[in-house]
Amino acid sequence: MALVAPASPVKNARTLALGRSRLEQLGFRVNADRSLLSEYGYLAGTDRERARDLEAALRDPDIKAIFCARGGYGVARMLPLVDLALARRHPKPLIGFSDITVLHLALQRASIVSFWGPMPCSSLGWSRFAARALQRALMSAAPVGRLPFAPNRRPTVWRRGRAEGRLTGGTLSLLTASLGTPYEVETRGRVVFLEDVDEEPYRVDRMLTQLIQAGKLRDAAGVAIGIFTGAQVRNAPARRSLTMRQVFADHLLPLKVPVLGNLAVGHVADQVTLPYGVAARMDASAGTIELLEAGVRE
Amino acid sequence: MALVAPASPVKNARTLALGRSRLEQLGFRVNADRSLLSEYGYLAGTDRERARDLEAALRDPDIKAIFCARGGYGVARMLPLVDLALARRHPKPLIGFSDITVLHLALQRASIVSFWGPMPCSSLGWSRFAARALQRALMSAAPVGRLPFAPNRRPTVWRRGRAEGRLTGGTLSLLTASLGTPYEVETRGRVVFLEDVDEEPYRVDRMLTQLIQAGKLRDAAGVAIGIFTGAQVRNAPARRSLTMRQVFADHLLPLKVPVLGNLAVGHVADQVTLPYGVAARMDASAGTIELLEAGVRE
Repeated sequence: MALVAPASPVKNARTLALGRSRLEQLGFRVNADRSLLSEYGYLAGTDRERARDLEAALRDPDIKAIFCARGGYGVARMLPLVDLALARRHPKPLIGFSDITVLHLALQRASIVSFWGPMPCSSLGWSRFAARALQRALMSAAPVGRLPFAPNRRPTVWRRGRAEGRLTGGTLSLLTASLGTPYEVETRGRVVFLEDVDEEPYRVDRMLTQLIQAGKLRDAAGVAIGIFTGAQVRNAPARRSLTMRQVFADHLLPLKVPVLGNLAVGHVADQVTLPYGVAARMDASAGTIELLEAGVRE
Repeated sequence: MALVAPASPVKNARTLALGRSRLEQLGFRVNADRSLLSEYGYLAGTDRERARDLEAALRDPDIKAIFCARGGYGVARMLPLVDLALARRHPKPLIGFSDITVLHLALQRASIVSFWGPMPCSSLGWSRFAARALQRALMSAAPVGRLPFAPNRRPTVWRRGRAEGRLTGGTLSLLTASLGTPYEVETRGRVVFLEDVDEEPYRVDRMLTQLIQAGKLRDAAGVAIGIFTGAQVRNAPARRSLTMRQVFADHLLPLKVPVLGNLAVGHVADQVTLPYGVAARMDASAGTIELLEAGVRE
């Protein structure tokens, strides 16, 4: 498989070696080159270079899967330069999270299954839990089945009810950043998962306001809230802020669809791998979300 | 005139008294009540309360102008509850900046002239420079004329050329937060000003990417960049970031419209008051922007 950096560069050669060994331990033969360490500011090379590397990995018939080394920022800048028809002609799993959300949304529009999952050169998310979930989702043609909730947390039932729909979602700030663009997130009839990192409650509030006023989430089948890490208030006393709980309640309760919290996705070590576009069933009353299809074929 | 808080609450009674005296010094009779100090987290009361206060000020024939006490966050949440037809039936100047950008965009859609300008209870932006610019824009039926650039900075010519169009713009993060919503910023054929505060280069990059991929700015007549304060890189060495200069160059130079920098708007004390929707003329080669109409009538 190929290791690519469509967003920010891998920190250094040591982190690159670590990422390679993590993948090799799962049995992958890893194709990675020095361009993962290229730097144009916070980008792993210019937009054109990153687009070219991604296209090469899509095109090469010997490449069976594409791992994004890490997130950061940069996918959206590069997307207009990528020939997404290549992904349709040479479908193969692409795995990543955070900034990679944007790439998942674009691949969804091309009807390709891609995977929200851990990244080997990220400082987060390669626990045993995550590696096992990744193997299960990627290497088995059986559906993932019941999704885990965050360790030591129980599913929070925000709004009871049942729903079925294809899976979509990702990092909230990147879902809102897709609005109005050709890669805009589609939520109609879907089960939508949301997570984010280092966004204060007022920013999450602003993002949910935008998403919902743009007609999104209102038309969803159901909503699954993951883990929002680093959401504490900065530069002001916490009592002068709405809590994350209040923000979610103000925006999600009026949606009239089932809403569950504490799903094991987020900028955390223990996170599940989620295939975009597969059928999902939520039973918020029972506190369960189940994937009914696999993301890969035999 | 009325003092309202459609976003965050005024800090305390003392700040409220200061704001009142600032307006009285300009000759206004100030109508302000305790609701400016109401708190629902970072909001000056619930959405319904803030919407009601704004509607009351719009409706009252004795109120000749509406000052927003401060920004913060909250306008977007409240907007669906405001009857904007009231603004059309009782047109009067509304003044504010930052989060108030969203209210300006909504009033633009109702064809009302409102004013980007200083707020009396904000910690920023009530210098003598700002107060004079406010008086000039608000109390005279003569066009504002040539716009000032930031003190001690010269106009930066990013891209030469001339343009004419109606004025729009505001805080970049709020312009992007309008995308996909009923209050989406309209940039076609307009002169668009941009500023922001406390947004790192990669975030400004992400916002410009979204705005441009959504078809905005590409269709503008010209772009005027104000001051971006607090844009320094956090949690990483600065050398691993694009500079603000690079971010602007990457996104604005391919637009093929005139672009000028260092306009005196932003989260700064010395800023000009700008009437939305009036005709503006840019001559980027000469480094000038001129407003050809007044925002108020005799």
